[in-house]
Amino acid sequence: MNAKNSKSKSLPIGIFDSGIGGLTVVRAIRRLLPCEDIIYLGDTARVPYGTKSPETVIQFAREDARFLLRQRIKAIVVACNTVSAWALPELERICKVPVFGVIEPGVSSALQRTKNYRIGVIGTNATINSRSYTAAIMAQVKKAKVFAKACPLLVPLVEEGWINHKVTLEVLSIYLKPLLNKNIDTLVLGCTHYPLLKSEIKKITGTEIALVDSAQSCAESVKVKLENRGLLHPSTDRKGNVTVYVTDAPEHFTRLADRFLGSALKTAWKAEL
Amino acid sequence: MNAKNSKSKSLPIGIFDSGIGGLTVVRAIRRLLPCEDIIYLGDTARVPYGTKSPETVIQFAREDARFLLRQRIKAIVVACNTVSAWALPELERICKVPVFGVIEPGVSSALQRTKNYRIGVIGTNATINSRSYTAAIMAQVKKAKVFAKACPLLVPLVEEGWINHKVTLEVLSIYLKPLLNKNIDTLVLGCTHYPLLKSEIKKITGTEIALVDSAQSCAESVKVKLENRGLLHPSTDRKGNVTVYVTDAPEHFTRLADRFLGSALKTAWKAEL
Repeated sequence: MNAKNSKSKSLPIGIFDSGIGGLTVVRAIRRLLPCEDIIYLGDTARVPYGTKSPETVIQFAREDARFLLRQRIKAIVVACNTVSAWALPELERICKVPVFGVIEPGVSSALQRTKNYRIGVIGTNATINSRSYTAAIMAQVKKAKVFAKACPLLVPLVEEGWINHKVTLEVLSIYLKPLLNKNIDTLVLGCTHYPLLKSEIKKITGTEIALVDSAQSCAESVKVKLENRGLLHPSTDRKGNVTVYVTDAPEHFTRLADRFLGSALKTAWKAEL
Repeated sequence: MNAKNSKSKSLPIGIFDSGIGGLTVVRAIRRLLPCEDIIYLGDTARVPYGTKSPETVIQFAREDARFLLRQRIKAIVVACNTVSAWALPELERICKVPVFGVIEPGVSSALQRTKNYRIGVIGTNATINSRSYTAAIMAQVKKAKVFAKACPLLVPLVEEGWINHKVTLEVLSIYLKPLLNKNIDTLVLGCTHYPLLKSEIKKITGTEIALVDSAQSCAESVKVKLENRGLLHPSTDRKGNVTVYVTDAPEHFTRLADRFLGSALKTAWKAEL
């Protein structure tokens, strides 16, 4: 191993999302890779991306990635399904470090779980319109049937804090019914906000349908990929730091962040992109 | 009248909003002032503003206003309650043309209508947190009681197209119940998206509570203020043009825009702020 690689290993992992949903990915990576330092960027001033056009999503993603690259990192995790759906080729072009998205791990996980190859996918308008999940699943298993449904109200419901709420259950039931009618046996939660609704979703889907949490699948895949590239942190007995940057006022953000991170976020810093 | 003023009269009115909600203001102004040219800017790449911090709202508003000033206009209408709540002093500072917001006209209209001086206000988180409506109402009528309620799910519901929908009715009922319990006789719709929900809101409030449409009040006030300043268009038999700029991809936006404008929007242009 050369000196350069040895130095890279100790660098933080850069993670970004349109807002704070990506903290569910941070949480999952922390659990699997507690020794790693993490620098997180949430573009809270311009959130959401899921309602925006591909051109705008790509432009914002480029600015987000450049901010992380300036912090010196060993890899970038795109903790946002919308960015993963539209901007991965552009990010791979401009980044000298490996770039990991959330879609490919979610697809692998769905294909491991499904038995009847009838897979449902829910996400933002932009993610669903991209047809990225459908294309990635069918590239691997041609006979698979993918039923995708945009669910634009779920992010606002989570951000309003209506997690265990009859309205959320009703909205979920309206969104999921067309997928259930297609006899799916696996449902991909294709947005980093959705893991917070997992237990509500289960009330609609029952126990027979496997739920694929793209945050969890992404974390598992990041671990394997860093290991394969010899990029895991050299120490195994340290506790990594998480540094959080946001583009809107930080104090506006910490209260909601705790819900996604699963623990209290002490400080967030203002990022200038 | 000097030559400069005479020339100014023929210039367009600049109108901006965080997104396309402000087209309800355009619609109301078109109805009252059909001879005027209008240049509209919707910051669709960074929408919404109502969930963002005051600092960010002020920064975005400054950029929006500067874009309009570059187009040569005779006045700026801030067709966004959130911007009107936070950024009006800053916009008045940087603009050489008159700046008109939506809050003051809404307040005047509410005070004309109320009999018991118990007034409800609904709006985005940012608008309600600003306490702008409350402060403006109480500055005029000290004995007034203002009951304000943030309704962050209403914009996403409108944008999802769930206008006449049982979920929207249920959400409205949850949001409005605490206000109805306060015996209000007037309700200010403090967000330019809300006029689209007027008939649903009436199902909850009944006919006894006066609804103040801030888009309509704003249009009436713009007419009076332009008249007072001698800035109405000199021709009375022309049909004004509406030019629409957006910051996200225009084609992404025209379909939804029709709903707000009440007529088909032929073209929108991409604005670089």
